[in-house]
Amino acid sequence: MEDIRYQPIGIVHSPIRQEDHVPPRPTHSKSIEGTVEVFPEYTDGLQDLDGFSHIVLLCHLHLSNGHKLVVKPPSDTTSHGVFATRSPMRPNPISMTVVQLTAVEGSILRVTGLDLIDGTPVLDIKPYFPALRDNEDIRTGWAARKEG
Amino acid sequence: MEDIRYQPIGIVHSPIRQEDHVPPRPTHSKSIEGTVEVFPEYTDGLQDLDGFSHIVLLCHLHLSNGHKLVVKPPSDTTSHGVFATRSPMRPNPISMTVVQLTAVEGSILRVTGLDLIDGTPVLDIKPYFPALRDNEDIRTGWAARKEG
Repeated sequence: MEDIRYQPIGIVHSPIRQEDHVPPRPTHSKSIEGTVEVFPEYTDGLQDLDGFSHIVLLCHLHLSNGHKLVVKPPSDTTSHGVFATRSPMRPNPISMTVVQLTAVEGSILRVTGLDLIDGTPVLDIKPYFPALRDNEDIRTGWAARKEG
Repeated sequence: MEDIRYQPIGIVHSPIRQEDHVPPRPTHSKSIEGTVEVFPEYTDGLQDLDGFSHIVLLCHLHLSNGHKLVVKPPSDTTSHGVFATRSPMRPNPISMTVVQLTAVEGSILRVTGLDLIDGTPVLDIKPYFPALRDNEDIRTGWAARKEG
């Protein structure tokens, strides 16, 4: 099958370095601030993004080196299918991070809540909408006992 | 810059056909049922996914033909930057859909809440975690007045 090909639209500037421990769960990275530098040719696509309090960053985990179908998350002692985890060792190493958007300054987005390593290529930016109604029953499987 | 290359890990089977009108907002597709067929070589990655009530599908919008930086969503009369919308006319046409996972039958996932056209290639499957705390203040910019 023919490859699907993408080009980065920007890059993450983050205090998390390659050698650091990336926060294993989104709730642990609530306070990590950084910026997304959107490449100049895409700046026009940011119009009205500043009205959103939160955005979704889809990034290419460029340091991911091959994939595993069964992985043991750092927060757990047992293994799970990679699609039931947030492991970077995925067949297509795309990350999804919801961050708070604190400012839009030209092509620079100031964000809080990063769990991405400095230099990570950004594939897409989306407005964040609460996906589910408050009263919907949500189960988080093996990860439920790791919450908090 | 070198292209980022991905291969589909599965395919969406959906009642939404190419010629249909795709529900413009996620809340409009709550009841649309379908399946995700994960290709056999990735089935082991589904282990323990059945513990999650909801999953995220990242898909390649294969029918998207070029991009626009400023778009007018079907739900609005004014234009916005593409990154402030869910338009498929994005530089990297990746969609993000939260669906309810009703059953895992081997390599077939039964899901509810699809807004994807039949035949859409799947790039990644992630467990869904509520991204934000309930008491966090969420603003949805231009789209707020379109809610409901």
